Amino acid sequence: MLSDRLLKVLKSLGMAYNDELGTFVHRRTQIPLSIYYDPKEGEVRAIDQTKLPYELSIWKTRDWKDVVLAIKQMIIRGAPLIGCAGGFALPLAARKLRERKPNKLVEELSDVAQRVASVRPTAVDVENITKRIVNTARQALADGLSSQAIAEKVEYEAIDVFVDNLILNKALRDRGREFIQDGDVVLTHCNPGSLATSYGGSALGIIEEAVAGGSNVLVVVKETRPRCQGYKLTTWELLMAKVPMVVISDNMVSSAIDRYNVTKVLVGADRITRDGYVANKIGTHDIALIASSYQIPFYVAAPYSTLDFLRKGAQIPIEERDRSELTKFYRHESLFMKGSDLLSVDALENWPEEAKLTEKDRPSRGEIRIYNPAFDVTPPNLISQVILDVGTYSPNQLGTLDENAVKEEAKKIVDSYLASLGVL
Amino acid sequence: MLSDRLLKVLKSLGMAYNDELGTFVHRRTQIPLSIYYDPKEGEVRAIDQTKLPYELSIWKTRDWKDVVLAIKQMIIRGAPLIGCAGGFALPLAARKLRERKPNKLVEELSDVAQRVASVRPTAVDVENITKRIVNTARQALADGLSSQAIAEKVEYEAIDVFVDNLILNKALRDRGREFIQDGDVVLTHCNPGSLATSYGGSALGIIEEAVAGGSNVLVVVKETRPRCQGYKLTTWELLMAKVPMVVISDNMVSSAIDRYNVTKVLVGADRITRDGYVANKIGTHDIALIASSYQIPFYVAAPYSTLDFLRKGAQIPIEERDRSELTKFYRHESLFMKGSDLLSVDALENWPEEAKLTEKDRPSRGEIRIYNPAFDVTPPNLISQVILDVGTYSPNQLGTLDENAVKEEAKKIVDSYLASLGVL
Repeated sequence: MLSDRLLKVLKSLGMAYNDELGTFVHRRTQIPLSIYYDPKEGEVRAIDQTKLPYELSIWKTRDWKDVVLAIKQMIIRGAPLIGCAGGFALPLAARKLRERKPNKLVEELSDVAQRVASVRPTAVDVENITKRIVNTARQALADGLSSQAIAEKVEYEAIDVFVDNLILNKALRDRGREFIQDGDVVLTHCNPGSLATSYGGSALGIIEEAVAGGSNVLVVVKETRPRCQGYKLTTWELLMAKVPMVVISDNMVSSAIDRYNVTKVLVGADRITRDGYVANKIGTHDIALIASSYQIPFYVAAPYSTLDFLRKGAQIPIEERDRSELTKFYRHESLFMKGSDLLSVDALENWPEEAKLTEKDRPSRGEIRIYNPAFDVTPPNLISQVILDVGTYSPNQLGTLDENAVKEEAKKIVDSYLASLGVL
Repeated sequence: MLSDRLLKVLKSLGMAYNDELGTFVHRRTQIPLSIYYDPKEGEVRAIDQTKLPYELSIWKTRDWKDVVLAIKQMIIRGAPLIGCAGGFALPLAARKLRERKPNKLVEELSDVAQRVASVRPTAVDVENITKRIVNTARQALADGLSSQAIAEKVEYEAIDVFVDNLILNKALRDRGREFIQDGDVVLTHCNPGSLATSYGGSALGIIEEAVAGGSNVLVVVKETRPRCQGYKLTTWELLMAKVPMVVISDNMVSSAIDRYNVTKVLVGADRITRDGYVANKIGTHDIALIASSYQIPFYVAAPYSTLDFLRKGAQIPIEERDRSELTKFYRHESLFMKGSDLLSVDALENWPEEAKLTEKDRPSRGEIRIYNPAFDVTPPNLISQVILDVGTYSPNQLGTLDENAVKEEAKKIVDSYLASLGVL
């Protein structure tokens, strides 16, 4: 039974169900699953990442439209986790469509998949994962199954994707171990951690595994403006995992390299193309250029679901997000200063003033344009190695990868893990 | 008369006295003097830069100890402005010491100069400027002047330094014009502007001059964490001067270069050594490395008072500031979210929690160290040209500069300007 399989996998990873939170929590680190789907209730439960690090709160929904909103508002974020969330949006939708005719159900499901996948256009995992689940629904339709049965297949497949994600994260943590030596000082960016995946993380997962194994590793955490996932999420996660860290703002890269003798850079990815380009959180390319000038190796760690087999690096769409992500800290500051009598009651609460802001690409005199791309693209010549769950590759080797062979390899890893648990 | 000289200089720069603010304001841009000394009242008046951009407020004092505090709290900031402020601290101190014996007065004044100069150890201007004024007091003592007369000499000299600063800023703005072409897209950092000097600025002053002269120039402004002088001060100043700008966070350097075709980088400096090293706001070295990889010219603009004729680049002291500069935005955010019911009443108000923070250089497991250097040092190989008020130099040419010759050159510029106003 599938639920039994999920339970066994979670247990093998050290997770136990927590009644209060309504989700599974890692026994040692106390880090919960970032997302969980309760098949009995037909409910998605996720850590509300907009409330971290101030409080740990579980966000819940039974409506796929809420999942779209949660991804947009970054309650759920991180390319692999968005993939799992998009996957779980489909059984939520399918449940509501069970009364429809089978072909209508699958058609609408395909629309939902496109809606979910287009919320954050740079992250590719959700595109890959929803495609896989919709294909399962199409196959079930072709096999002549009822709407009820198709909806069940969709649910099974979404949970299967989740199980795969858990196992492959573990595989990525293990595979990356060889890249971390005792005494390493690793600079990372944003939150390529457990919070960016179902559980276990990519780049941070590798480090957490090394530290749990006794290695002495120091992590340099960058604030990661404008949303500050480094300052808010990575610190939270690494504190839970007891990984020692130094926090810097984003403009202290070379200073931190000089002061702390950074030995390597290890980041995650939102999309990796076969010509060796890596889209990741804005700021990654800056780090890569600086690391290159210091001849410090630059590693990218990600699940294979981050691979884009269709597009080239130059074709990666870059999401530009709302300027309020940059401006809101200043509103908070002004309000705080007013409340503390550090500013007069007449002081501005918003800076820049709305009237001075423009959305035009080229501002005119007296105008300000706030530019807020969420990602950038690092070219292959700056990347030492790409560490995937299915294997490690130089950027140039990525071009030799075959989509089906990669999926086969991932399946082998998953099946071998499930077999070892006796639940294949 | 000296006051007449100051008035003529201010008028020639387009400044008029504003009764409400109690200081001079530029007629066209409405930017006030960053600092002003009223000799009648024996009072220093400065823009309170901790309140910008939310409100323009003039901070006042008659006590030199307040000046020290204002520099520490960054009510007054920017290396050249700290120099002027340190200079004005001395007549404030001298006024209070007029009843002392002449040798005692000069001795205490020398102590005050050291106190003022050591508040922000990386910025060198204040060291150079206070030395000049103390030397004047020593000369007056050697000439057998009374305490009253020495105090007057000190006041004259501090105002003279200020007049020099105003004229030399104007000279720097004019000299830098040849480095800005119509159509340029200039990336800058922190606030090397009018607000960082008495009036007129260094790097931004050059751009403001070009735009006022009709050139089409776009400025890319970096937020400049942790104190956000780019976001808060440079935007304020460039809006007043009607210079079009794009604002980015500090990790968007290469993205902005790609998107806006940045043609040059132009920054200020806190200390320039004769072996060609430039200390400037943290993040400058990162920009220089990135610009170098794009082969974009990197210019430094500063008054000659920023030159350090004694130390080598490797000997520049780097001030590390309090971690609260990084953490306070998160406190504001938590309070704001609590006030908006986006967090529960039990949510943390400070992150990281005090108990997890360490001041140890190397944090242990479960500990966080917040690293907050205020400056970094850019080596000569990354610098295209250093634009000083007294001339422009390649980094390698700086070693050929002679301290006395530079001072002579500065005096020539000042004298020629004063002569043109008929107040030499």
